[in-house]
Amino acid sequence: MKTFDIIPPDPRFDAGIIDKIDNLTKPKGSLGRLEEIALQICRIQRTLTPELRNPHNILFAADHGIIEEGVSVSPKEVTWQQLAHFARGGAGINFLCAQHGFRLVLVDAGVDYDIPRDAGIIDRKIRRSTSNFLHGPAMTPEEYEKAMEEGAATVDEVHAAGCNVVSFGEMGCGNTSASSMWMHAFTGIPLDRCIGAGAGLDNPGIRHKADVLARAWAGYSGASSTEDIIRWFGGFEMVMAVGGMLRAAELGMTVIVDGFIMTACMLAASRLNPDVLHYAVFGHQGDESGHRLMLEAMGAKPVLHLGLRLGEGSGAVCAYPILQSAVRMVNDMDSFTTASVTKYF
Amino acid sequence: MKTFDIIPPDPRFDAGIIDKIDNLTKPKGSLGRLEEIALQICRIQRTLTPELRNPHNILFAADHGIIEEGVSVSPKEVTWQQLAHFARGGAGINFLCAQHGFRLVLVDAGVDYDIPRDAGIIDRKIRRSTSNFLHGPAMTPEEYEKAMEEGAATVDEVHAAGCNVVSFGEMGCGNTSASSMWMHAFTGIPLDRCIGAGAGLDNPGIRHKADVLARAWAGYSGASSTEDIIRWFGGFEMVMAVGGMLRAAELGMTVIVDGFIMTACMLAASRLNPDVLHYAVFGHQGDESGHRLMLEAMGAKPVLHLGLRLGEGSGAVCAYPILQSAVRMVNDMDSFTTASVTKYF
Repeated sequence: MKTFDIIPPDPRFDAGIIDKIDNLTKPKGSLGRLEEIALQICRIQRTLTPELRNPHNILFAADHGIIEEGVSVSPKEVTWQQLAHFARGGAGINFLCAQHGFRLVLVDAGVDYDIPRDAGIIDRKIRRSTSNFLHGPAMTPEEYEKAMEEGAATVDEVHAAGCNVVSFGEMGCGNTSASSMWMHAFTGIPLDRCIGAGAGLDNPGIRHKADVLARAWAGYSGASSTEDIIRWFGGFEMVMAVGGMLRAAELGMTVIVDGFIMTACMLAASRLNPDVLHYAVFGHQGDESGHRLMLEAMGAKPVLHLGLRLGEGSGAVCAYPILQSAVRMVNDMDSFTTASVTKYF
Repeated sequence: MKTFDIIPPDPRFDAGIIDKIDNLTKPKGSLGRLEEIALQICRIQRTLTPELRNPHNILFAADHGIIEEGVSVSPKEVTWQQLAHFARGGAGINFLCAQHGFRLVLVDAGVDYDIPRDAGIIDRKIRRSTSNFLHGPAMTPEEYEKAMEEGAATVDEVHAAGCNVVSFGEMGCGNTSASSMWMHAFTGIPLDRCIGAGAGLDNPGIRHKADVLARAWAGYSGASSTEDIIRWFGGFEMVMAVGGMLRAAELGMTVIVDGFIMTACMLAASRLNPDVLHYAVFGHQGDESGHRLMLEAMGAKPVLHLGLRLGEGSGAVCAYPILQSAVRMVNDMDSFTTASVTKYF
């Protein structure tokens, strides 16, 4: 089984970083979250002069067998249609990546459609859709292992291209259902508080989804290990993201976490290796019911609260300028030692 | 007395904007605050293809007579030292303006120091510091009028340079005290809930500040009109910002509102002409006690919550990429009419 050797930050390094930040020409602590993010990125990069290079948004797409149960407002064909749309440009994630200088990497992790080879979408398809987890595991142990490896390999490629900051996005009708199951299993928060409207269910739709997921949970007959829960309920795009996050942390990269589904992936990753959290900046808290609860359970403090519920990595990419500000603060601000300003705190 | 002719948005225009936003390839409402900001900017610019051009951050600096009472942790010389520091670069607002393509305009509105002419700071000094409002009005009616006009004239200049989006910042030791007085006077929120730590007072310092401001409020013997309250407690940099905000709205510009002090200025501006609020995007809710209360009293929904308390326009400039995202969304995203994606809501 693939494991990841993630090095936690060295606490001996903190005093130097904090001293530098506290001596910048501002009242102590007055740049709030920028100071906290700067500290985290300095820790990750083990430097007082951090740098964010070649950001990539890796978007994994796949279909989910559970959608047969009517848990999603979107028909299954929206998964491949949207993936093709991302490749053409003109979707939400495209303008955000263009704005913030992200390269968008599109990966077919398990879409139930024959994606044309020349569409600009990387083929890492495990299978055309997972199985319906109401009746058994979504994927086999071999498929789980393969998806973890493919996710890690995708990160290896962007790292080799000089990237040291990465966000992950997803497209997969039905994947809020899978995420709710992981959230419930890994946090113990009651299942009905882990379930929301997804792409736009109405109240009867949410009640039906809750009923389906409660039956799926009651029918779970697996080994109850972290790996087993991930593979039983997960999607191929989600397991690839988990593998990608763990590999990115292993490589010392900063990981920006997107919305509900990617937070569930970071949660799963943290159950496989808690040190991954040192490398995670939570980009956005969205409106999907349960996202706030999951972030709280992880002790995570999201950068933005913009009410986004698009997925695709949109919340993570939107948060990027705040990370850039944090890095600029450390590198570009004068210190009281060099500027002619009375230290006023 | 200077008045401003601000045109409220035309509601007949809304249906077309909302229709365009709702037909972009995303679940309806899924871009949250970006959709709300896009609607507002389209209203302001009366177009379905909005544009943000040549952003400027206008930073007014001045000293406050009330600082004699020991209400600020910063000695008065920090005002001119920091203003000079902004002109040299290397302060907080400098790296933020550089990051987001803002031109920084520095204005001496009433600093108690002879600023060198060649320092890159515009001389609009009304007087070297306001008077101490514990003992009488901070400025005369003539000074108030002059400051309003100078603020408006500064905006005229940046507008003539092709700017259609502006933020305002400030530097002025003691100006959280002045802002608390305006907030109390204009919202009726109890004075002690309008008072906070400023640049870093400890608890005894905050209690002393509250005592001074309570005595100043008790001693107020003016006409209780909006104009009288503004001039009695205000600062020259704050009145210039009020004049600047009103003029920017009159010119159809988008105004990004910074932290506690600039929110107090927008509050005062809105008491002079409520239509100014149609042009205001609240950039940031900071940690200064009372800022949240003031925003709530104005029905304002800030874009960011980053715990900043630097002033200088920092929170407004940090919010700018979110406004840019909103504008890109409207201009760059495909609609369901043209893209081959099933409309899934």
